[in-house]
Amino acid sequence: MAVNLSAPTELRPVAGVELAAAEAKIRYRDRPDLALIALAPGTVSASVFTRNAFCAAPVSVAKQHLAQATPRYLLINAGNANAGTGAAGLAAATATCAAVAAAAGCEPHEVLPFSTGVIGEPLPVERFVEVLPSAVGSLAPQGWLDAARAIMTTDTVPKGISRTVTVGEREATITGIAKGSGMIRPDMATMLAFIATDAEVAQPLLQRCLQEAVDESFNAVTVDGDTSTNDACLLMATGRSGAVVSEGGGYAAFAAQVRAVCQFLAQAMIRDGEGATKFVTVEVCGAAARDEAREVAFTVAHSPLVKTALFASDPNWGRILAAVGRAGITALDVARVDIHLGEVCIVRNGARAESYTEEAGQGVMQAPEITIRIDLNRGQASTQVWTCDFSYDYVKINADYRS
Amino acid sequence: MAVNLSAPTELRPVAGVELAAAEAKIRYRDRPDLALIALAPGTVSASVFTRNAFCAAPVSVAKQHLAQATPRYLLINAGNANAGTGAAGLAAATATCAAVAAAAGCEPHEVLPFSTGVIGEPLPVERFVEVLPSAVGSLAPQGWLDAARAIMTTDTVPKGISRTVTVGEREATITGIAKGSGMIRPDMATMLAFIATDAEVAQPLLQRCLQEAVDESFNAVTVDGDTSTNDACLLMATGRSGAVVSEGGGYAAFAAQVRAVCQFLAQAMIRDGEGATKFVTVEVCGAAARDEAREVAFTVAHSPLVKTALFASDPNWGRILAAVGRAGITALDVARVDIHLGEVCIVRNGARAESYTEEAGQGVMQAPEITIRIDLNRGQASTQVWTCDFSYDYVKINADYRS
Repeated sequence: MAVNLSAPTELRPVAGVELAAAEAKIRYRDRPDLALIALAPGTVSASVFTRNAFCAAPVSVAKQHLAQATPRYLLINAGNANAGTGAAGLAAATATCAAVAAAAGCEPHEVLPFSTGVIGEPLPVERFVEVLPSAVGSLAPQGWLDAARAIMTTDTVPKGISRTVTVGEREATITGIAKGSGMIRPDMATMLAFIATDAEVAQPLLQRCLQEAVDESFNAVTVDGDTSTNDACLLMATGRSGAVVSEGGGYAAFAAQVRAVCQFLAQAMIRDGEGATKFVTVEVCGAAARDEAREVAFTVAHSPLVKTALFASDPNWGRILAAVGRAGITALDVARVDIHLGEVCIVRNGARAESYTEEAGQGVMQAPEITIRIDLNRGQASTQVWTCDFSYDYVKINADYRS
Repeated sequence: MAVNLSAPTELRPVAGVELAAAEAKIRYRDRPDLALIALAPGTVSASVFTRNAFCAAPVSVAKQHLAQATPRYLLINAGNANAGTGAAGLAAATATCAAVAAAAGCEPHEVLPFSTGVIGEPLPVERFVEVLPSAVGSLAPQGWLDAARAIMTTDTVPKGISRTVTVGEREATITGIAKGSGMIRPDMATMLAFIATDAEVAQPLLQRCLQEAVDESFNAVTVDGDTSTNDACLLMATGRSGAVVSEGGGYAAFAAQVRAVCQFLAQAMIRDGEGATKFVTVEVCGAAARDEAREVAFTVAHSPLVKTALFASDPNWGRILAAVGRAGITALDVARVDIHLGEVCIVRNGARAESYTEEAGQGVMQAPEITIRIDLNRGQASTQVWTCDFSYDYVKINADYRS
């Protein structure tokens, strides 16, 4: 069902990072549902988390541990979000960190917990305790793809990508994995994404690099407008390649590759969006400010009427126009708005373009990848967001699945 | 398919108001698609219109005519919204007013045009011209139900209601009709609603009465969050009953009945919402301010995940909690939030209530009418909004229908 997305065939190991997957049977059966990531001593981490006020217990615990120590292990489970679980949920998340610490020989606050799955169920800590010793024993640099599979919930395809960048004379690798296909409208981060590099980067620069990349990737996608309680994205730099990135040396090239990894992973979530049959890029240009461009782009990308028309391959430009009109833009002069579907101009000066034909519009809409370009013609700011259509299967998946 | 809604069996005539319906074959065949409403001289009108920046041509023309004269005729067509039609659309809307003026013997600016249906198609003025003379000839006080049928698009049930109120010694009637079941998230008004009374009310008081009623009715419902380009709501007072409403005399009783008519019509749209199988009331209380309560209520009411869970009769309270958490409320203390489904407490202090059982939750969710009550426990403000679920049929209707 995913739109032009297949499983990664190869994910490059990152020196200083080892991974393992295990079957903890938290909710799923006969598939791995737990991933463990070990980081070499001295690894520097940057992170962003959900802004949902009901953030999950593991998000609270991870933030607390990050304030206390440099993380050595990441523990991720699928099938149970440990959200809406109150004090018991916080205790459970802390207990899983203690279990990793006991099995691996580190401090509990050197472990960061992450959970994704059903909201409001108690986390079965004992199942973590059972499988963690053997998970620690099977940690390996080649474990990326297994970890990408272990963190899936309604995802149909595991998501991962590797890039390289040369800094000075050294080559550094950047490898990232992510999960997510519903409850996707990240706010500062996405469902779960883990990106590691063997470059050496100082923490403040690494955090800036992640925030810039997230802004143009995970924060620019939406499946259903529903921001998750568990969103988290980590960028970890082990420094083991010997490639040293600094503001004056290699940052631009490094940041471009991090952004490319984040954009690939964010777009992969949309391609694998629940019930998705189309991958849609909404471009807004000619806006007075970037916030205004984003408001218009997200209003179009969230409109159930636009999304069902995309599912039907119907060039129903009236719905796009109605969504632009309700985006709350101050003093919008609708008589200056132009809209293109792919290369076809559908709206010129706020009304149907004279050159427009239904056949031309339908030609664009039949394709699995569609670009909607909206020019407000009132300024220089622009943005892009990515979304998918709204199909019978979205309803089916979310009527059947307990998230 | 509509939830606990059937066609009105009787709509009381309003002295001073006559109505007619006609088959203009604008888009539909073998059904009336045009309504004409005649108002006695001296009738006072109050109105609210869409805030969508891409407001339709008839909305612009109606506002312009209202500024010039007291309306004598309302002309409403279904099947073509005359929106996104630029200068040609404005000319067409003006031409239909001229056609009424010619057939009925009034000035063109004494006619208000209203359109609902497909966006972006040219309005076929000649079909109006053909049928208007006979429509004028068949105007009658009993025409309310025919008019209610003529303005339907994807509605499955005509919507109308009558109420009476005694002012002094006199009884006044209030009768209203409306249409709308998709592209419904009114902003200052709804798709189309026309309410008339034979009470006598001064214009400023009538406008205040309408705005207060709309705020608690049409502006408190949503099907899909998509604000239409054509929303309009009119309240007309002919004064022919002899009942005189003034601020010191009868206003409260009169306003209460107007609000009841508006709430019935607004809720009727939700009961007949596209693909609706549930009628859902979202109550938010304990908010610091009314705007905050509305923000939370609409975030829950628009969440595709909450709406698909409602369709599945699944007491998926985690999705409600996640929606509350992303509503953007400043400094929300999630540990104070309580949520009830009907009379069943599902969330207490931000986590699953200890007394909650899945059976109890499912019992509430099976019913066709469901109330979700969210107590933020941080203030005195509260609000109610009404919405419906998100079903396969919503997708089917909007993938098939060109709006």
